Amino acid sequence: MALKKKPVTGMKDILPAEMQIRDYVMGIIKDTYKSFGFSSIETPCVEHIENLTSKQGGDNEKLIFKILKRGNKLDLDSAREENDLVDGGLRYDLTLPLSRYYANNAAQLPSPFKALQMGSVWRADRPQKGRFRQFVQCDIDILGDASSLAEIELILATTTALGKICPDNAFTVRINDRGILKAMAAHCGFPEESCDQVFIILDKMDKIGVDGVAAELMEAGFAKESVDKYLALFDSVSRDAAGVRKLGEILADVMPAEVSENLAHIMDTVQGSAVAKFGIEFDPTLVRGMSYYTGTIFEVAMEGFGGSVAGGGRYDKMIGKFTGMETPACGFSIGFERIVTILMDQNFEVPAQAGKKAYLFEKGVDSQVLSGILKEAMEERASGAQILVAQMNKNKKFQKEQLAKEGYTEFKEFYREAIKR
Amino acid sequence: MALKKKPVTGMKDILPAEMQIRDYVMGIIKDTYKSFGFSSIETPCVEHIENLTSKQGGDNEKLIFKILKRGNKLDLDSAREENDLVDGGLRYDLTLPLSRYYANNAAQLPSPFKALQMGSVWRADRPQKGRFRQFVQCDIDILGDASSLAEIELILATTTALGKICPDNAFTVRINDRGILKAMAAHCGFPEESCDQVFIILDKMDKIGVDGVAAELMEAGFAKESVDKYLALFDSVSRDAAGVRKLGEILADVMPAEVSENLAHIMDTVQGSAVAKFGIEFDPTLVRGMSYYTGTIFEVAMEGFGGSVAGGGRYDKMIGKFTGMETPACGFSIGFERIVTILMDQNFEVPAQAGKKAYLFEKGVDSQVLSGILKEAMEERASGAQILVAQMNKNKKFQKEQLAKEGYTEFKEFYREAIKR
Repeated sequence: MALKKKPVTGMKDILPAEMQIRDYVMGIIKDTYKSFGFSSIETPCVEHIENLTSKQGGDNEKLIFKILKRGNKLDLDSAREENDLVDGGLRYDLTLPLSRYYANNAAQLPSPFKALQMGSVWRADRPQKGRFRQFVQCDIDILGDASSLAEIELILATTTALGKICPDNAFTVRINDRGILKAMAAHCGFPEESCDQVFIILDKMDKIGVDGVAAELMEAGFAKESVDKYLALFDSVSRDAAGVRKLGEILADVMPAEVSENLAHIMDTVQGSAVAKFGIEFDPTLVRGMSYYTGTIFEVAMEGFGGSVAGGGRYDKMIGKFTGMETPACGFSIGFERIVTILMDQNFEVPAQAGKKAYLFEKGVDSQVLSGILKEAMEERASGAQILVAQMNKNKKFQKEQLAKEGYTEFKEFYREAIKR
Repeated sequence: MALKKKPVTGMKDILPAEMQIRDYVMGIIKDTYKSFGFSSIETPCVEHIENLTSKQGGDNEKLIFKILKRGNKLDLDSAREENDLVDGGLRYDLTLPLSRYYANNAAQLPSPFKALQMGSVWRADRPQKGRFRQFVQCDIDILGDASSLAEIELILATTTALGKICPDNAFTVRINDRGILKAMAAHCGFPEESCDQVFIILDKMDKIGVDGVAAELMEAGFAKESVDKYLALFDSVSRDAAGVRKLGEILADVMPAEVSENLAHIMDTVQGSAVAKFGIEFDPTLVRGMSYYTGTIFEVAMEGFGGSVAGGGRYDKMIGKFTGMETPACGFSIGFERIVTILMDQNFEVPAQAGKKAYLFEKGVDSQVLSGILKEAMEERASGAQILVAQMNKNKKFQKEQLAKEGYTEFKEFYREAIKR
């Protein structure tokens, strides 16, 4: 029977050229994060369906690849609906499994715990260019630290990694706080229960601009007075720490001063200690979709990358859902696939780490001669070179041209009788 | 709602200490294989159910985690059996997806193609100590090379990697050829159609010994004459290349001389060129379970590891199942999880690659002081050190003890006023 050659819908085979870039980027991220004291961990790719559908994942919960029950647990006759058939699913992010992991293993982990995760996640999104149903996420999270040191270290670590991967692209950290978002809405007279609706519209600022946001807010039936006051507020403050402090004063009726002071402190400290060159700027319109965020939220926008290449925030309530005991948590996720795609588009070449040399030997060499050739190759390999040993083709010129495309530009030839040329 | 804390049945959370060992072992394997000219590739973890159940996978096909169809494709009412509900499954090995990958991408790949894969696979085995339902496989395969250079390079690469991971453990490569296995059976008068049954019994040699094998063969109804001749044959030849050549002469009636000469050549050449210290020995009782093997088969037995730590062989027919065009193929798989488990049991410690230092600062330092501390940390990190920055606890002594367990043995303390002590 002929089998199916293409990968399953929406997933891809990764060719050697892309893998080189992926391995390179992943190596930089891992090394950088480890230098900040983050520890690698892993969770299973399969997660309990109850956990995946616990309303932590927003729309991602609609995109789960579900796994069929096995053996006696699967009762096709009595199954009424999908959920009777499944007991697991592929994880759609690394945050929910991390929460479960921490709840399960906290006793064996340091506190605060600085976790580094790099792994595949799956979402049954509609397939489209550059978006795949299996993709890698790179997350760092700090669990058990309620202080702003968590945010500061996350931002420093991620910007350091990005600066190494793309040393020539300028980038900016945009930062906000869910508390400020809520206070701004309250201050302008939006009812508390409409907050989420207001934020969903505000989140479109990048796409539809301030006029678009105004129009949609009015359409949604909010008072013109509130909308006008809201939009004016964004313009009334500067995008630096001073602006945050000023906004804090404006919102004093609805927000404790700690919220703005905390954010300003993060901005000041990051600015004062960063080695990589980047700006950090307050963005009162930054929303970020995930409903689990409870405090600071941030994104990195990179020149030439259109949209954000990393994002994260504080989510202090999520781990408590597993443990019953609230644990402060804050995370930052690098848009790994996005960065790889753009590097591919730019024909990025991974810096060569070792000499690549091809040994070509004539067909019919005996064991003893071949052993000698291989021995030499083994010695070069041991000292760090990359040596390909291959039988010489009839069309040696073409063979060398092909090998040159793979990066083998140095050749050594071996013949049956003696070494020619 | 309280969520489930434990991982799904048979899968595990990987703690930082184990991850360190995994990353270390994986790094050695990857670097070594790359020095031999193998290229990293990746296939999706989800594979077409038709491919997974195409009888290439033997018993593994009974252990597939199956993935529910989505949207309109899922019709619960008309579904009569399991297979009506699913269209994908998690891969149970890396070899089947590699065959599909090669069939799909051969035009863009060099020939011969030397592939390196490190990835998770899933099998719903009964959970037991040290066996998990998600585990990592590390495979190298050479596709498109019918010559014995493939076997030789695979064996040299894998033994080099094993020699670096476990420099103090002696190990032996055991090697055989399916052609020799079959010829031995034919020579002794076993009917051709019983070969598989004979090999299944022979494969138990390690566990039940030669008397056990004899008894089971008799029980299965084979002629005493055949059984006696068969067992005597194993003892009649030495375990080196000379023994292989002698066996070739004995089997001249049922096997072309190329088969034994090819195996003897592999043994001679490996022996003559290896840098790592290991023996290579002919094992006429080596069977290896997978039915897709067509020629040479091999395993690595390591002192103190009980059983094999790596195995592989030639499978020249598999890729043709996808493409309709036969492609020679040969692979070697390192028992990654087994090696990690044993290193863990031996309390193996990953050689420290960088200084680990903890910066502890007094609570309440202001932005400016904190920036100075972080700046210093950033500089040390940039030069390769691993720096943890943490707020000093009230019980500083206990905090340091805990950090020491994580490998932070050097401390630097920062205070609000000035640097004390």
